[in-house]
Amino acid sequence: MRQYEMFELSFEGPQPEESEALTDITAEFTCGEDTWKVKGFYDGNKNYKVRFLPQKLGTYTWKVSGVVSEEGSEECTSSEKSHGMVQVEGNHFTYQDGTKYLPFGTTIYALVHQEESLIEETFQTLEKAPFNKVRHCIFPKSYDFNHNDPQYYPFEKDADGKWDVNHPCYAYWKHLEENIVRLGEMGIESDLILMHSYDRWGFAFLTMEEIAVYVEYTMRRLAAYPYIWWSMANEYDFLFNHKMEDWYEIEKMITENDPYHHLLSNHNGMKIYDFSRPAITHCCLQTNAMHKAADWWNQYQKPVIFDECCYEGDIEHEWGNISAFEMVNRFWKACAVGAFATHGETYYSEDEVLWWAKGGTLHGESPERIAFLKDFMYGLEDALEPWSEPMFEEFNNVTEQIVPGELPPFVQLMQSLTPEESENLKWKSAAYTGHYKENIYLKYFGNQRPRVAAIRLPKEHFYKVEMIDVWDMTRTVVEEKVSGKVLLTLPGKEGIAVLATRVNQ
Amino acid sequence: MRQYEMFELSFEGPQPEESEALTDITAEFTCGEDTWKVKGFYDGNKNYKVRFLPQKLGTYTWKVSGVVSEEGSEECTSSEKSHGMVQVEGNHFTYQDGTKYLPFGTTIYALVHQEESLIEETFQTLEKAPFNKVRHCIFPKSYDFNHNDPQYYPFEKDADGKWDVNHPCYAYWKHLEENIVRLGEMGIESDLILMHSYDRWGFAFLTMEEIAVYVEYTMRRLAAYPYIWWSMANEYDFLFNHKMEDWYEIEKMITENDPYHHLLSNHNGMKIYDFSRPAITHCCLQTNAMHKAADWWNQYQKPVIFDECCYEGDIEHEWGNISAFEMVNRFWKACAVGAFATHGETYYSEDEVLWWAKGGTLHGESPERIAFLKDFMYGLEDALEPWSEPMFEEFNNVTEQIVPGELPPFVQLMQSLTPEESENLKWKSAAYTGHYKENIYLKYFGNQRPRVAAIRLPKEHFYKVEMIDVWDMTRTVVEEKVSGKVLLTLPGKEGIAVLATRVNQ
Repeated sequence: MRQYEMFELSFEGPQPEESEALTDITAEFTCGEDTWKVKGFYDGNKNYKVRFLPQKLGTYTWKVSGVVSEEGSEECTSSEKSHGMVQVEGNHFTYQDGTKYLPFGTTIYALVHQEESLIEETFQTLEKAPFNKVRHCIFPKSYDFNHNDPQYYPFEKDADGKWDVNHPCYAYWKHLEENIVRLGEMGIESDLILMHSYDRWGFAFLTMEEIAVYVEYTMRRLAAYPYIWWSMANEYDFLFNHKMEDWYEIEKMITENDPYHHLLSNHNGMKIYDFSRPAITHCCLQTNAMHKAADWWNQYQKPVIFDECCYEGDIEHEWGNISAFEMVNRFWKACAVGAFATHGETYYSEDEVLWWAKGGTLHGESPERIAFLKDFMYGLEDALEPWSEPMFEEFNNVTEQIVPGELPPFVQLMQSLTPEESENLKWKSAAYTGHYKENIYLKYFGNQRPRVAAIRLPKEHFYKVEMIDVWDMTRTVVEEKVSGKVLLTLPGKEGIAVLATRVNQ
Repeated sequence: MRQYEMFELSFEGPQPEESEALTDITAEFTCGEDTWKVKGFYDGNKNYKVRFLPQKLGTYTWKVSGVVSEEGSEECTSSEKSHGMVQVEGNHFTYQDGTKYLPFGTTIYALVHQEESLIEETFQTLEKAPFNKVRHCIFPKSYDFNHNDPQYYPFEKDADGKWDVNHPCYAYWKHLEENIVRLGEMGIESDLILMHSYDRWGFAFLTMEEIAVYVEYTMRRLAAYPYIWWSMANEYDFLFNHKMEDWYEIEKMITENDPYHHLLSNHNGMKIYDFSRPAITHCCLQTNAMHKAADWWNQYQKPVIFDECCYEGDIEHEWGNISAFEMVNRFWKACAVGAFATHGETYYSEDEVLWWAKGGTLHGESPERIAFLKDFMYGLEDALEPWSEPMFEEFNNVTEQIVPGELPPFVQLMQSLTPEESENLKWKSAAYTGHYKENIYLKYFGNQRPRVAAIRLPKEHFYKVEMIDVWDMTRTVVEEKVSGKVLLTLPGKEGIAVLATRVNQ
């Protein structure tokens, strides 16, 4: 038994008489004064398993009861490879052992539903790619470019040809786990999507009772893997057969059956999920409103991931045909303010193998730039938070006529804007600025192309200033020791960032 | 006297004892059963003028009264050069004589406040540029890059050194008129801005009484020129000393003193003016929310001009550093749905001569592409209107579960969106599609880069389909005779439009 690594016990037991999904097997793991209760699961062929994710070092005693009665003890030593689960810390993430983790995800919805040779190709690609999180689905996907049937389905069918959630397809789950483990060992988190609407087999139409069985079995089998995040759904609001209350119920099914509190969120089509709910650990957003990261952080006080902000590609759909530059641009817009983004690639291909759903080989120009950004962000002293560059005050001095006792007229004007006017303005004047304490300031200009610009740093400290070209992947020191408002000469092109790092006086 | 050309009478009279702006001189022009009453103005040096813009052909008698008493008659013949004022027709514009006019404007705020040599250079540039409207100001401009003082100011100062609106500076107005006339004779409308906040001389702080005098004098002098539009202000909402009621009052000052009802609007900083007001002829917008053109057209039923949607350039300000492609992109987004856009250029220059304020020479790459677009739009059979391509129905069939008697779930979902969610979605999925009857369909993909796409044409007619590359300025026939949903192979780059023109069966 190793801390932060999945520990598994295996037993022979009776063939289940009722549900094969919700069998009567539980276990208690005790270490010192702490006890964890977990449920085991049936894995077919009279085989029962109990999985456990040890949270601390020490000597554990365990006791299994139900259809199997066994007990034993294990010494839990420290892991040489696992940093534990990824957890939330403020507006960002860390591994449980304190190791830095900044999500740079990609999207391969139907990763595990492809032929073995294609999955192998995908892993070869991931070996060289920067991504440390993959959004992928438990259920297979039916959609444009997704007309192939998977090798396995999560359930067997009953005598009426209907999916029987009480009869898992063990080959499917073994296959899924192998892929999750392989990703995990590569340092890639599985952001595992439990439900979605792109379906032609019926998985999108399970009843709430069936979903409860499916979710509990999923938790019993998978929750002990450290590198899993739960994504309740992809585009939950497009599952029109479910009301909002259903999602709250599903949320509860997960939290009640996940002893370790993996990261949990819910991905929207159009209607953003209520991330303020206590069980939700972070904001999982489909939107290209990158400029609103700070708003969402302020609103929810949880990390913000733009898990779908369109994909580099050239297919018909507007969510799948942005340029490589625009993909990179959106990553920088997110990261500059302490948020995160997720990649996807949808280049049209006659063979219908598009990365976003099936994996394979990456063809785009954004991944190497995302790698550059990832190195850049990991190289910073700590995670960033949104920064309001103090330029507004300057502006006030120049043009405002302030009446004592009244708000400055500019503030009054902004308060009088309709939501529509306010949104339009934000799209236009969005600045992407983040900081870490008074040590680091990052300003990303995005589509703006200033040849002359300024960054307004604290007057009390000195900073080294670097200019980053996010497309050419260059990083140039432009000032060695400056403070206060610093005027900069820039190349007058899109995709320029400026980094100020505090230096000793 | 020529129809649609300014007709001027000039008289000697007494030196005004009170206001030199609001002198007692009126005239009646009668032609058949129609009579126009206009006010004359004092032009200094005991010289009074009456200006008149004949709206119809025929024999006119005129009678001047007040400080001057004269009468006479004139034969009004048809003009060989003027098409009359630009007027509104539906969601677009035409000249009074029915000649097509599609605004392709540019911005030179302080055009008339520069040295003669620079103004001359500006006109040389305009000779070769595509622009047929210029937004420029009566008052001089004080701002970044605008530190020079003009040769003339609109008013003389009184004994206390305060601007005296009752004492116009005649040299200023003569100079302004010469420039307006020169523009007009080149086919360029003056979108004349009466007020703005970028001021260091005090023109932004006139009282309402002073504004009334200033506006009336402006109308008396300038209203008879056919090629003038009134823009009440540039960024009216940044004139913090004025409340909304003041603008309604100023609107009234203009309409009551303009006998010809020139085009009239008001340009916003952040808060869009109420274009539904009866006197307002069109929507004059500062915004880069190009996707909302159809919304505004539907809301106001008046032509939509994006009179400021950021400028091609590289200065610090976010409104002045977009790429040439993005400037062109925004023009196409507007024009594709039957709206219009206005150009501006702000390339940083040591000599502080930036086109947007001072004119001079254009350095950017957008004007020649705007010329290409202008030729393209003028080449269409008629002005476009927004078109909702019928793709939603298709979508319904694929993914919706419609309950009889209820709205389709997708519609229900969209109705449940918050304004914020709705805005974000529009930015993402914006399609730029316009049509003229069933004769012309235009679809502009903007930043989308589909390699495969479709246009959904009526099944009842046949169409020729052309692909336009808005940057390379090429136009290629891709289908000679098609109908219904047409699948297209496109180059997978930004800035592609598709035009379908109806052909005989």
